Parts: sequence; structure tokens; C-alpha cells
Amino acid sequence: MKDDPARRELGNYPVRLELVSRFGDTDQQKHVNNVAVAAYYQEGRTELNRDVERTGYRRPAGSRSLVARLEIDYFGEIPYPGTVTIGIGISRIGTTSYTLGMAMFQQGQCMGLAATVLVYADAQGPAPLPAPFRALLEERMLKGIARP
Amino acid sequence: MKDDPARRELGNYPVRLELVSRFGDTDQQKHVNNVAVAAYYQEGRTELNRDVERTGYRRPAGSRSLVARLEIDYFGEIPYPGTVTIGIGISRIGTTSYTLGMAMFQQGQCMGLAATVLVYADAQGPAPLPAPFRALLEERMLKGIARP
Amino acid sequence: MKDDPARRELGNYPVRLELVSRFGDTDQQKHVNNVAVAAYYQEGRTELNRDVERTGYRRPAGSRSLVARLEIDYFGEIPYPGTVTIGIGISRIGTTSYTLGMAMFQQGQCMGLAATVLVYADAQGPAPLPAPFRALLEERMLKGIARP
Amino acid sequence: MKDDPARRELGNYPVRLELVSRFGDTDQQKHVNNVAVAAYYQEGRTELNRDVERTGYRRPAGSRSLVARLEIDYFGEIPYPGTVTIGIGISRIGTTSYTLGMAMFQQGQCMGLAATVLVYADAQGPAPLPAPFRALLEERMLKGIARP
Repeated sequence: MKDDPARRELGNYPVRLELVSRFGDTDQQKHVNNVAVAAYYQEGRTELNRDVERTGYRRPAGSRSLVARLEIDYFGEIPYPGTVTIGIGISRIGTTSYTLGMAMFQQGQCMGLAATVLVYADAQGPAPLPAPFRALLEERMLKGIARP
Repeated sequence: MKDDPARRELGNYPVRLELVSRFGDTDQQKHVNNVAVAAYYQEGRTELNRDVERTGYRRPAGSRSLVARLEIDYFGEIPYPGTVTIGIGISRIGTTSYTLGMAMFQQGQCMGLAATVLVYADAQGPAPLPAPFRALLEERMLKGIARP
Repeated sequence: MKDDPARRELGNYPVRLELVSRFGDTDQQKHVNNVAVAAYYQEGRTELNRDVERTGYRRPAGSRSLVARLEIDYFGEIPYPGTVTIGIGISRIGTTSYTLGMAMFQQGQCMGLAATVLVYADAQGPAPLPAPFRALLEERMLKGIARP
Repeated sequence: MKDDPARRELGNYPVRLELVSRFGDTDQQKHVNNVAVAAYYQEGRTELNRDVERTGYRRPAGSRSLVARLEIDYFGEIPYPGTVTIGIGISRIGTTSYTLGMAMFQQGQCMGLAATVLVYADAQGPAPLPAPFRALLEERMLKGIARP
């Protein structure tokens, strides 16, 4: 993802979230801690869920999306205090899994990228994405990015 | 890393850390949260630093290792309460950067893998790894893993 | 609680929990953060719950204990890395509420005290403590402490 | 503090901070966790520090304010997602210590109160509050509250 310039443009992300950094996010080096950055992307992931639910869609009872893989590229330190904007979109839709592509911006500059692979599961384990859920993911695809 | 069976053997990791899961690590799904898992790997990373410092080595003043990239593969949910063991080693040594390879075990079973790319930097920015530090990293290489 | 010497003796606490401090618990001042100390006491509170459940007791469905008040006295900084022991007991049993008394020890020295007031509630709101639960709390009273 | 109605009026707090709750602040009960609420008050405390520094005042090198005591009264559960406003002021100024009074509001309703006792210290230990710092604290006193 690091080498795709489209990933560093906020305009390509269909969903956005603003986050204010907290003292509690900083570490001994006085910047926002790397794990806190992972927590910011988690907030981005839940924002995408909320964005899907705002359409009125409700997931089948007992189904959930499990995080199977997380990748984060850190381009610079996130200062505190400050505000970051997270851009969130879908970068891949498979049969039983999908990938969220995210980026973090501060004052217009891209400070990092993330990808989260999610496996859709019901009580029995991995299951095909339901058609209406898949359609909502399709509507939230990242723009300008070669779909693998 | 997911496809290398050597990565799933605790015996291949030269440094170990035991962690007791906390209520504060769990989330709404009552398991250890994905970001908490990233925090566990951060503890693993600091344990490797301590292991290097136990030799008496002290890093040059003003130098530090910056996290440039983090990758985590989640194989299963970490239950609470419980104890996990993190295996930590070096999987790659470059000119100005190096990679930590980690794995998480619960009752002998591998629950996940992680890789952290660290860039060595002094006040001016990325800098070559000092020879004595490089030697200490060499001594902590993961075993049985094809060195890229 | 600060002025009662009995509160500073680990031997007076019927339940104990050992906690290993984490890098993630530290803050810009490089010691264990004050909020992390509050999180440690939360682990102490859950340990008391587990200790009660180890007797086989199960709470009535839908009932829960809500934290109504938290008091912490900090006597010294908790260094990292290190291990602390939390002593936990009951300091007061009321009609619909009870109070946990806790203390934190490091190498035998008392580093702080805490009190947590919990309100017992069912679906309708605050409710009298069930007799068997009350009996289990009685068995876990702090020793040597004037019962208010 | 619970019994003083003036403590439950946002208008009586000279400094304010808005906080957006995060998924990471919630716990197994799906509300904002009690320790997360303590973390919110910590953000309030740092906001008061920033408010003092905005006047241009800089603390003497090596001095710091250590948290000696924390008290929190919880009146209700903080839902997620949501926004809270923290009101922050000074409720007591002593010789070497001072107390912050805080309150948490959601949609105009007071959801809780907090008090943090801070001890001013230099390298030798507790020290008298410097006159200019004391004057800045005086300017940030809670209104309408009986000064003990």
C-alpha cells in the first residue's frame, strides 16, 4: 500500500473520522504511541461499521467480522496535542473476507496507512458475505486504487 | 510470515515474555481486544530492548529506534483471564533498519504472529546500525527462518 | 483510610493479586501513570469477583454491581519495570451497597490505598444484597479495620 | 463534593474540555469504562495545565505537580458513542498543594464529579507554590463553592 500514491489522498476515502489526541495516548517519548495509533485505526474501523448501519442495515444475529490481519505503515510521529483525520474505505472484497484501507492525515499531510483484513463469520465459522452487506461495502470502495 | 511453520515454534524465539491478560485488555466481545494484542507485542519489543541492555550495552545518546511498520496476523481469540507467552527475535538486519519477529502462544498453541520494522535514527535521522548493536541483534536472530 | 495503619498491612487483605507493570502503563514522566494505577485497582476488583465465583456462587441473572465512587491515595510512584501486589477486601457492607478496600504494595512497602463503593442493582435499579452474596462478602472483610 | 449543588453546574467551572468517547473506552458492559472516566478527568487536568501555560507562564525547571489523591463520584453511565464536556477549576489552594474540582456533563446533565489533590514538588520534594503560579490558580477558582 505504501507505494500507491492514491492511498495518500484523503479525497479517495469515502468515510472520514476526526480524532483529538489525548495525553493518555502519549508515551515516554512524548508523542502519540504506536499502539495508540493502532487504536485510532480501530476507531476508524468502528466508524465504517456505523456508516454501514446508518443506512438501516442490520447484520444477521450472531454474525461478526473478526480481525485476521493488521498492517500499519508509520510515516511520521503524531504530535500531542493535535487533531488527526482518518480516511476509511474498502480496498478488497473477497468471498468470506474483506479489507479496510485507512490513512491518517494531519494538517493535510499523510502520516500513515493501515489495512485491516476482516473475516466474516457466523456461529459456525467463516461464512460468505451476505449480498446486501457486500453491496454496502462496494459503495464504500476506496477511489483511484487498483483493485487486487 | 504466516506461511513459515518455523515462525509458529516457540523454541525458535531467543527471547520470551509472559503476560497475564487483564480485564482492561478486553472489549465488548469479552475477549482480549485486537489493539490490546498490539500492546502485548509492544511489551515484547521492549523486552528485547531490555534483553540487549542486560548485556551492559548502552545506545549512543540521542539515538532511537522508530517503528516504521507493524504487521499482525491473528489466528485466534485470546481469552481472558489467561496467560500468554510472547516469543521475540530478529528476523532481518538491514543497514539502517531491522525487523523483529514475534509470536504469541497460549498453552503451547500459536495464537498469532507479528513483525515490527524499526528504523535506527540519530538526531539527524536514519543512521547505520552501530557495529556493537548489530552484533547484539545478530545474537538474537530467529532460528530456522529463511533470512531474507 | 489514609490514617488507619491497618490499611497498610498486606496481611489484613484476604484476597491478593500480583500485577506486572507494562511499558504501556507508563507516561511521559516514565513512571506508572496515575490512571494506570486506577486500572490496577480495577483488576483487583475483578479478582475479588473471581474469588467469590470460585466458591460456585453465581449472581442472579441481570444483577450487577455499579461503581458509584472511587477514591485513591497515591503514596509514591510505581516504577517500571516492576511487580506490585494488590491486597483486596471488603471494608463496608450496607443494604444495597458495599465498599472494597484495596492497597498496593511493592517490595513490602505500601504505595497507595483505594476504596471503591459499589451499588448492587437489578434491572429495576438498586436492590438489597442477596443473603448468600452478603455472606460471601462478610467472609472477605478486611482484618483489623474499624467497621464503620 | 456530592452534596454541593454548585458542583453540578457547568457555569461554575472556568475551564472546559470536550471529549468524544471512543470504542476503546468501552468495556464488556458496552458503556464507557470506569477507568476510562478516570482517564477523561486526566485529560481535564492536563487541559487546566495548558490553560495556565496559555498565559505565558512557565513552571520552574524540575518542578512538577504530583497526584496525591483522586476521588470520583459516578452518577450515571456514559454511553458510547457520545460527547462529554468536562468542567475544570480549582477548589482549594494550600501551601504546597492544591485541589482540582471537575465535573462531567452530557447533554447538560451532570454525570459525575472528581477531585484531584496535587502536591507541588521540586527536586527536593514538596515545596511552596510559587506566587505567580498561585495567582494563576486563584484566577481559576470554581465559582459558587464554599472554599474550605
